Amino acid sequence: MPTIPETLRVDPGRLWEDFQNLSRFGRTQEEGVSRPAFSAVHLQARAWFRERVLAAGLKFSVDGAGNHSARLDCALPAAGKHARVLLLGSHLDSVPNGGRYDGALGVLAALEVLRVIKDAGLALPVDLEAIDFSDEEGTLLGLMGSRALAGKLTRAELAAPRGGRQALLEGLGRAGLDEAGLLTANRSVQQVSGYLELHIEQGPRLKSQGMQIGVVTAIVGISSYRLVFTGRADHAGTTPVQDRLDAAQGAAAFILEARKLVLQQFPGCVANVGLLVLEPGAYNIVPQRAVLGFECRSASMGELERLEAALLAQAQHEAQRYNLGLEAELLSRHAPAMMSVKVQDAIAGAAEALGLAHTRLASGAGHDAQSLASLCSSGMIFIPSQEGGSHSPREHSTWQDCLNGANVLLGATLRMALQQMDQTI
Amino acid sequence: MPTIPETLRVDPGRLWEDFQNLSRFGRTQEEGVSRPAFSAVHLQARAWFRERVLAAGLKFSVDGAGNHSARLDCALPAAGKHARVLLLGSHLDSVPNGGRYDGALGVLAALEVLRVIKDAGLALPVDLEAIDFSDEEGTLLGLMGSRALAGKLTRAELAAPRGGRQALLEGLGRAGLDEAGLLTANRSVQQVSGYLELHIEQGPRLKSQGMQIGVVTAIVGISSYRLVFTGRADHAGTTPVQDRLDAAQGAAAFILEARKLVLQQFPGCVANVGLLVLEPGAYNIVPQRAVLGFECRSASMGELERLEAALLAQAQHEAQRYNLGLEAELLSRHAPAMMSVKVQDAIAGAAEALGLAHTRLASGAGHDAQSLASLCSSGMIFIPSQEGGSHSPREHSTWQDCLNGANVLLGATLRMALQQMDQTI
Repeated sequence: MPTIPETLRVDPGRLWEDFQNLSRFGRTQEEGVSRPAFSAVHLQARAWFRERVLAAGLKFSVDGAGNHSARLDCALPAAGKHARVLLLGSHLDSVPNGGRYDGALGVLAALEVLRVIKDAGLALPVDLEAIDFSDEEGTLLGLMGSRALAGKLTRAELAAPRGGRQALLEGLGRAGLDEAGLLTANRSVQQVSGYLELHIEQGPRLKSQGMQIGVVTAIVGISSYRLVFTGRADHAGTTPVQDRLDAAQGAAAFILEARKLVLQQFPGCVANVGLLVLEPGAYNIVPQRAVLGFECRSASMGELERLEAALLAQAQHEAQRYNLGLEAELLSRHAPAMMSVKVQDAIAGAAEALGLAHTRLASGAGHDAQSLASLCSSGMIFIPSQEGGSHSPREHSTWQDCLNGANVLLGATLRMALQQMDQTI
Repeated sequence: MPTIPETLRVDPGRLWEDFQNLSRFGRTQEEGVSRPAFSAVHLQARAWFRERVLAAGLKFSVDGAGNHSARLDCALPAAGKHARVLLLGSHLDSVPNGGRYDGALGVLAALEVLRVIKDAGLALPVDLEAIDFSDEEGTLLGLMGSRALAGKLTRAELAAPRGGRQALLEGLGRAGLDEAGLLTANRSVQQVSGYLELHIEQGPRLKSQGMQIGVVTAIVGISSYRLVFTGRADHAGTTPVQDRLDAAQGAAAFILEARKLVLQQFPGCVANVGLLVLEPGAYNIVPQRAVLGFECRSASMGELERLEAALLAQAQHEAQRYNLGLEAELLSRHAPAMMSVKVQDAIAGAAEALGLAHTRLASGAGHDAQSLASLCSSGMIFIPSQEGGSHSPREHSTWQDCLNGANVLLGATLRMALQQMDQTI
């Protein structure tokens, strides 16, 4: 294996300036950003990114899914025109009134890594590509660009997208795209040698453990369900409490018991009841229906299935206890995505070389890396999130942690490139 | 005391025909009725009622609150022009897709009682008036006509009515009324000697006890509150369950504990959590706020206050348990209204004379009688509701029970009139 140039570092001033400038697009009153996919301000941010790519002397391209790429043709002559590309990336779109780091940091650090390697004049076994994936956050579809690139988008999804069919068509139109292009943006394992993504953790684990770098082992699988408890609408003044079939009782018991079940029996998992509506929804009418939305997550498919089964059994138990009907509908199930062990080792090696405290952990949030994991060796680098939440203007990571992450991305890129990592996942 | 003509009975065929004809106004697909106050179909039903009054040879009048009255000037010459009037009534408006009996039965039975007494040529110490009160159900304000007559309407209420200011003004306009009239529709104790209302129970107690007639002792007081549990919005994938401040947990615990508290410590009372919204309301965000609406009822003011205090203490306890903030806002409090013991005795005497099984009970629902209770001796007659709920097309009482109720209304009217019941409540 060739010697890894361990002294290379990202340029802190250049990365800081990019970060500050990007944060201006869609800045909100609370100092967060609103850049929903294909909104005017998101397209402006992408135009700015294109200028930065061209200013760095890199090749710029857009694929059929609207993914924006900077390419550095640094492959050794031996690789010839069949050189594969190592992808580094994340996304520039955000949730409404989200934070400045989510996605943005990963894209800017990827661009910076290409600039550093270009400036150093390194020749590698692969070309490098910094990519900004379309609609990671799900304004329209969710993980749209990365799923398109991995060849995982289906016509059925496009027919009934999460944000509505009309919004999808209008968004594509604003970006100069169309459905046919989305379905032909896929790349092959012959083209892509691997994928690396730097991202904020969006959770408290690294900080609470005093760690500087997280090496992601897997991205959790997520299942979401709609539960409907059905009782009887009665006059809330004239119907004795013991005679009621109150749908709210079943839903309330499920909310409490689901939390206990996760804490006691599924300590590595999470579940969340995020939606609840009582119908008909009047002070003086006993709730006839309680419509509840929950999701649960696990990094293991077997455990996810056991967790789902336990939660559904609990819901059934509470329905019976309060003499209610229960309908459960599976809305979606995404299997966990495993990160490549070789890529994990490359990230850990880079952190080690930089003297950064690191640990392996699963990602509780979804990321573009989960799309790529089925196509090529993929991995993610996490940096600590400070208290204050994510998908919120309070989202924050220290700048030193951001720089650490970018330098680990650089080191892991060099390790993956020089090891000529193949497509084995 | 003069002899009470115990053999008088309402005319079953005449009352049945009226009931069937009235049910056509606003009939819904499910055989219920939709007659919101001052809607076109409600005004048509009132026009039909006016025709029935005139056809019976009774005097028809409308007051400033839009209450429609049939008057029988049956007072003995001795009472002179200062004869007081005994009011019998209820309301012809309904909730959307409500039942055919709620309110309608009481108005038609009152008209029938006047016809029977007119046909019998009886002279009494008082005049009689069958009244259809405006907007009992609260499309616009709730108990509007009866509160106006009792002099209880305030300008503040009219400025911010339950159904919205615009709806009130438009409704009044459609009925040819205005605010000034509403505030001058009040009558005095010198004019009104008492009030009697026949109504369906809207609950299961009479039926489950095998009773034919309920003698209402009081109309419950109602307090309604808005509770806001406040936690922290976190990413539902990346935030460990034990680190969350999940507002839904506090709300769910309150829903379960409120029910237990009423069953165990306030057996004669009721409470209902009819509304709950989780915010921001997404599958993947831990609920930051749970906004909950509840009401509670008791026939005793002291007990109502104790119940409120116990429920609020429970909410505070649950908020503390889950480390949540709590705000509680009293939205409204209506004191219980006591029914006159003399009127209760008149109703019980009439039921006794008819050989009907009767019992005394509090009304869990609000009625026009609660407005009148502060003006004059008031009472209510309940008949059993069959299973199937109220404020619903499933609302049902047997026709024999309706006839029993109308005959008790007749008997109680004669007793109240002949005893020259005064305004002592």
